[in-house]
Amino acid sequence: MSQSDYSTKGAYVTGEEFTRDTNYIEDRVVADVDAVTSASTEESSTIGDPRIAGLTEGAHAWPVEPGRYRLVAARACPWAHRTIIIRRLLGLEDVISLATPGPTHDARSWTFDLDEGGRDPVLGTQRLQENYFKRFPDYPRGITVPALVDIPSGGVVTNNYPQLTFDFSTQWKQYHREGAPDLIPEDLIDDMLPVIKRIFTEVNNGVYRAGFAGSQRAYEEAYHRLFDALDWLEERLAGQRYLMGETITEADVRLFTTLVRFDAVYHGHFKCNRQKLAEFPNLWNYARDLFQTPGFGDTVDFDQIKSHYYEVHEDINPTQIVPVGPELDSWLSEHGREKLGGQPFGAGTAPGPVSPEEQPPGANPLYR
Amino acid sequence: MSQSDYSTKGAYVTGEEFTRDTNYIEDRVVADVDAVTSASTEESSTIGDPRIAGLTEGAHAWPVEPGRYRLVAARACPWAHRTIIIRRLLGLEDVISLATPGPTHDARSWTFDLDEGGRDPVLGTQRLQENYFKRFPDYPRGITVPALVDIPSGGVVTNNYPQLTFDFSTQWKQYHREGAPDLIPEDLIDDMLPVIKRIFTEVNNGVYRAGFAGSQRAYEEAYHRLFDALDWLEERLAGQRYLMGETITEADVRLFTTLVRFDAVYHGHFKCNRQKLAEFPNLWNYARDLFQTPGFGDTVDFDQIKSHYYEVHEDINPTQIVPVGPELDSWLSEHGREKLGGQPFGAGTAPGPVSPEEQPPGANPLYR
Repeated sequence: MSQSDYSTKGAYVTGEEFTRDTNYIEDRVVADVDAVTSASTEESSTIGDPRIAGLTEGAHAWPVEPGRYRLVAARACPWAHRTIIIRRLLGLEDVISLATPGPTHDARSWTFDLDEGGRDPVLGTQRLQENYFKRFPDYPRGITVPALVDIPSGGVVTNNYPQLTFDFSTQWKQYHREGAPDLIPEDLIDDMLPVIKRIFTEVNNGVYRAGFAGSQRAYEEAYHRLFDALDWLEERLAGQRYLMGETITEADVRLFTTLVRFDAVYHGHFKCNRQKLAEFPNLWNYARDLFQTPGFGDTVDFDQIKSHYYEVHEDINPTQIVPVGPELDSWLSEHGREKLGGQPFGAGTAPGPVSPEEQPPGANPLYR
Repeated sequence: MSQSDYSTKGAYVTGEEFTRDTNYIEDRVVADVDAVTSASTEESSTIGDPRIAGLTEGAHAWPVEPGRYRLVAARACPWAHRTIIIRRLLGLEDVISLATPGPTHDARSWTFDLDEGGRDPVLGTQRLQENYFKRFPDYPRGITVPALVDIPSGGVVTNNYPQLTFDFSTQWKQYHREGAPDLIPEDLIDDMLPVIKRIFTEVNNGVYRAGFAGSQRAYEEAYHRLFDALDWLEERLAGQRYLMGETITEADVRLFTTLVRFDAVYHGHFKCNRQKLAEFPNLWNYARDLFQTPGFGDTVDFDQIKSHYYEVHEDINPTQIVPVGPELDSWLSEHGREKLGGQPFGAGTAPGPVSPEEQPPGANPLYR
């Protein structure tokens, strides 16, 4: 999620250390509404849970229904980017449509400024805030992406990104494309959730902790925590092609969205500069392997990514000047990971090409 | 020079493009005062001239005299860094003493905050500004380093850094150490001056042009100009060990001070991020070759360098947080440049080790 109401940072800063707001609209879209409403849990999770059948307190269940929901996901935002990739890997493009707000939201909301007339062609709104207000007129928290919107009412159903992608896999199964991969293999879940959790706290969120640190000391602690985790991943990926072994899982998607932004944004803008991603041999090969796999690199818009961070965070980049670099061609260079074996999509197949209307408009060496 | 009176940027910004103030106190310390005062030139030079016998209009000549002058050179500043390296290569340590202001000057002056009691032990001043005022009570321009100070009067003799290092070579010859290299070989001067000029305008100053650009457009022009020049140097250094061929010259010193700051500062802070220096094979090997050569790397203080840029330029880094990276050990890794042949010091020899009292106090892998 990237949030833009209380703060353009998608978070509150409590004291010196950056703390992410993890309260969301925790409704879910589920395959069987009656089955799910019976259970309930009290705590929200920072990573979600693919096994969970219940709802957090106060949340509602909505029915899976092709064409009913619109996924609002800014290409710039790493939390939204997850949903774009997983929607594509599973082949949900025809059943859940995609709205893409521009990269440079203001303090109040992400906006549909890239669309003709500045309005989303399906929802008809200019600002995503309108869709939050249609659901909750006094919605008090950040206007974040991704948000799943109920097209008939125009209201936001959920912005609970940790759970959203798991639900794409588990609840929308009936509508997956033929050959859709199993991103949450039953026999790997117990091992995968702790990996996902560590990636969330130390890497996905770790770069923000460094970039938004309120003091030299908080920054330095965040820096070392981040690179300790990257060293762990570098080692983990030395002997296996993907995070959980032979095939791509949800964990890889969650790591990829941070890695693909690393050299373009986090290294300089967030001062995560012990080394570039390109200077970690295994992580760099791994990231390029994924980038070159259908469903990953073909969803990336480097212009929107850079624009978002460098223009929105005026408090750390007051000039709002966006760097020209780094060069991007190396994303297409040979990665040599095939020698580790594995089957990217397991028993499934790769998704086909991105439809022309969903191709990222900005810089991406795959579309040259 | 780094200047701190009108602007902490050592320059005026005219319109969108960064423009460096190139007016200095252009007095010279010369071997033969009578010979030099007879000639005169009107224009000041951005690179100096080792062949010039005259003075710019209004300037004075001072006699070479061991022990009389104190070189005030902040280790953080690339223009001052040149003088520290050349003084050491030529073995002038015993005849020209060294004062080192701290990295984080305020808007008015570089200060001797690293020295006991916050005063330079020889000059007795707290702020370099005092030494400028002793010479010119109404000195109107930036308080810059390097500055050569007349110890008896406490007044600044010159801050004209483009000429200062040439004069160390040509005017102080009588006091060079045994084995001091010829950094301005007679037969190379005509070829070397255009190289030095291009390095000054495109690289030494080019990184500032990018970092202090007042608009996206000015920044992008500066970025491309800089990397065009680095591409030229990358190619030039493919087949020869040093910029002018077989031996180290003044041109190498002037390039080195920018290269050694590149990944630590210019890449992130100034958005010179097409690639790191470490991603240019020849330039990176060349820079490490020099770093590992006595007189170069042993003068570097990475902590002071980073601290200066990230703490002083609040307009581009308002948090003043200083990055922990990049890692520095790779400066000591094998560079393989010996295979290109050459004699670093020509007929001369390497300088001995840095005296304990002149060792840079901050981070430097050579001193671990």
